[in-house]
Amino acid sequence: MAGCSEFDLIDRYLARLGAGRDDVVLGPGDDAAITRGGGKPLLMALDTLVEGVHFPVDLPAEWIGYRALAVNLSDIAAMGGEPCWALLGLTLPAPDEAWVAPFAEGLGRLARAFGVAVIGGDVTRGPLTVSLQITGRATGPALRRDGASVGDRVWISGRPGEAAAGLGVWQQGDAREQARWQGLRQAFIAPRPRVALGQALAGVASAAIDLSDGLAADAGHIAARSGVALHLDPSCCRPSARLLRWAGEAGAYRLQLGGGDDYELCFTAPAEADAAVRAAARRARSPVRCIGEVGDGEGIWWGDHRIGEAAAGYRHFSV
Amino acid sequence: MAGCSEFDLIDRYLARLGAGRDDVVLGPGDDAAITRGGGKPLLMALDTLVEGVHFPVDLPAEWIGYRALAVNLSDIAAMGGEPCWALLGLTLPAPDEAWVAPFAEGLGRLARAFGVAVIGGDVTRGPLTVSLQITGRATGPALRRDGASVGDRVWISGRPGEAAAGLGVWQQGDAREQARWQGLRQAFIAPRPRVALGQALAGVASAAIDLSDGLAADAGHIAARSGVALHLDPSCCRPSARLLRWAGEAGAYRLQLGGGDDYELCFTAPAEADAAVRAAARRARSPVRCIGEVGDGEGIWWGDHRIGEAAAGYRHFSV
Repeated sequence: MAGCSEFDLIDRYLARLGAGRDDVVLGPGDDAAITRGGGKPLLMALDTLVEGVHFPVDLPAEWIGYRALAVNLSDIAAMGGEPCWALLGLTLPAPDEAWVAPFAEGLGRLARAFGVAVIGGDVTRGPLTVSLQITGRATGPALRRDGASVGDRVWISGRPGEAAAGLGVWQQGDAREQARWQGLRQAFIAPRPRVALGQALAGVASAAIDLSDGLAADAGHIAARSGVALHLDPSCCRPSARLLRWAGEAGAYRLQLGGGDDYELCFTAPAEADAAVRAAARRARSPVRCIGEVGDGEGIWWGDHRIGEAAAGYRHFSV
Repeated sequence: MAGCSEFDLIDRYLARLGAGRDDVVLGPGDDAAITRGGGKPLLMALDTLVEGVHFPVDLPAEWIGYRALAVNLSDIAAMGGEPCWALLGLTLPAPDEAWVAPFAEGLGRLARAFGVAVIGGDVTRGPLTVSLQITGRATGPALRRDGASVGDRVWISGRPGEAAAGLGVWQQGDAREQARWQGLRQAFIAPRPRVALGQALAGVASAAIDLSDGLAADAGHIAARSGVALHLDPSCCRPSARLLRWAGEAGAYRLQLGGGDDYELCFTAPAEADAAVRAAARRARSPVRCIGEVGDGEGIWWGDHRIGEAAAGYRHFSV
């Protein structure tokens, strides 16, 4: 696209993306954006998506834009916060308007749905990489990974493992199969960050994390940071019917423990907060399930069996 | 490095990087960092550096880490703010400890020097790319690009063009030449963001921008945003002696107008603020120079000649 500079692209597609917010004093176009923080603690996260590592090379631009924000919204959800502002670092091989337009549309649609303003960033030339930084505000006591106590219950939202199955469906490429397993496919392509649930759990849950690398791996972070063991009860962990149908019995359990990209929440709460957890989930219209409890010791346990690190989900760089 | 995961790398080198700050409630290691914003407006920027695009492939890791923070500090400087917190998105082809250690050292050293805490981020596998997001606080009225008025004077700090010359010195590779032109080389490798100058100019300057894409291009942003013309006076724009020696008369002027990566400030201020500008520069120990004035119209003018967009500095994607 001769004559199209990064500035044209930014101006056309990436300025004023997402929601309008009264606390944005100055949006894109200056050396920095200006916002009003207000009195509450700020929650700040940054995630990078690399083509072929974090999403398949054939994922449409619309869903790459969606995903870049969704994974960051999920971080704010896991802290129990309200997402506010995002900055976008977009690295592109070429200034391809036909790619940037749907990318901006996918990102902008999700931003508007969650009240997030995209206040700035940087567009550069290079291999396709998307870094997005998000800032939110705490709406109550922040949900950290280090707050789980012995005797707490372990909970999850949604149906972990379905996104990994959905990636499998996506990769099959067969249109009939994709239509047949549409629900799994959507779990992968369009994960819905549990922002409302996270906020409803602030002050109720004792610890929380979002599921990006798989239930066992991510729950392992709560265990490690809190200095406890998380005991999962196999009888409470039956995978969803469609996951069982797609992957078979053993495969479904394996995906549920080790599959990534669900962006559901795993959290702990005192046993006496059971009713409060269920009320929070109802308010947030999010399905939740108690899958175990917190004990002395360390690691993630599946009945009597400790789940090894090697089996515990996806890790970049692991060789 | 078998068995080394992203988590090990993050924990070892990138956690607790930079300054300790009382306003950081929770640093790296959770879904998001927690900070106390305080009452002042926040300044937020993000810049991405791509290997081979924003720095030469043979630039040592120490200086890539330094540069990733320096370019962001420069954005906060250009707004007149105090830099506070950074999040790092580091994409690496392999978890190479011999690369990450000096990278972290270069970034951390500059962060400590400027009181910045690195509070989180994301390490991923992929082509070498560094995205860094910085948040600062306004220390006075923020220095925007859109505040220049007709009659204001145009100022620069330092010696624009030297960084581009320094890149040339770097690329020559000859050790004797590199030693001979050490000062120019340093202007490219280790640009010193003008944070103190920016803060001293808050309430004094009417508009400011940092010089990343070249004086003509960046001053052009002030002109465009403020709806004015910037007239540079050639008699006030004599390049530094060493730039003249290295590049010759015509080359030095060309580099001064079009060379990038200086991370100096270009700013405007009312004529009656001359003494206040000089006092601010002395307080910040930054050399400044008046190089022209703001007039009606548009664009950047060099005497009677309007500088065309094509000549105005470096643009990614321009084809």
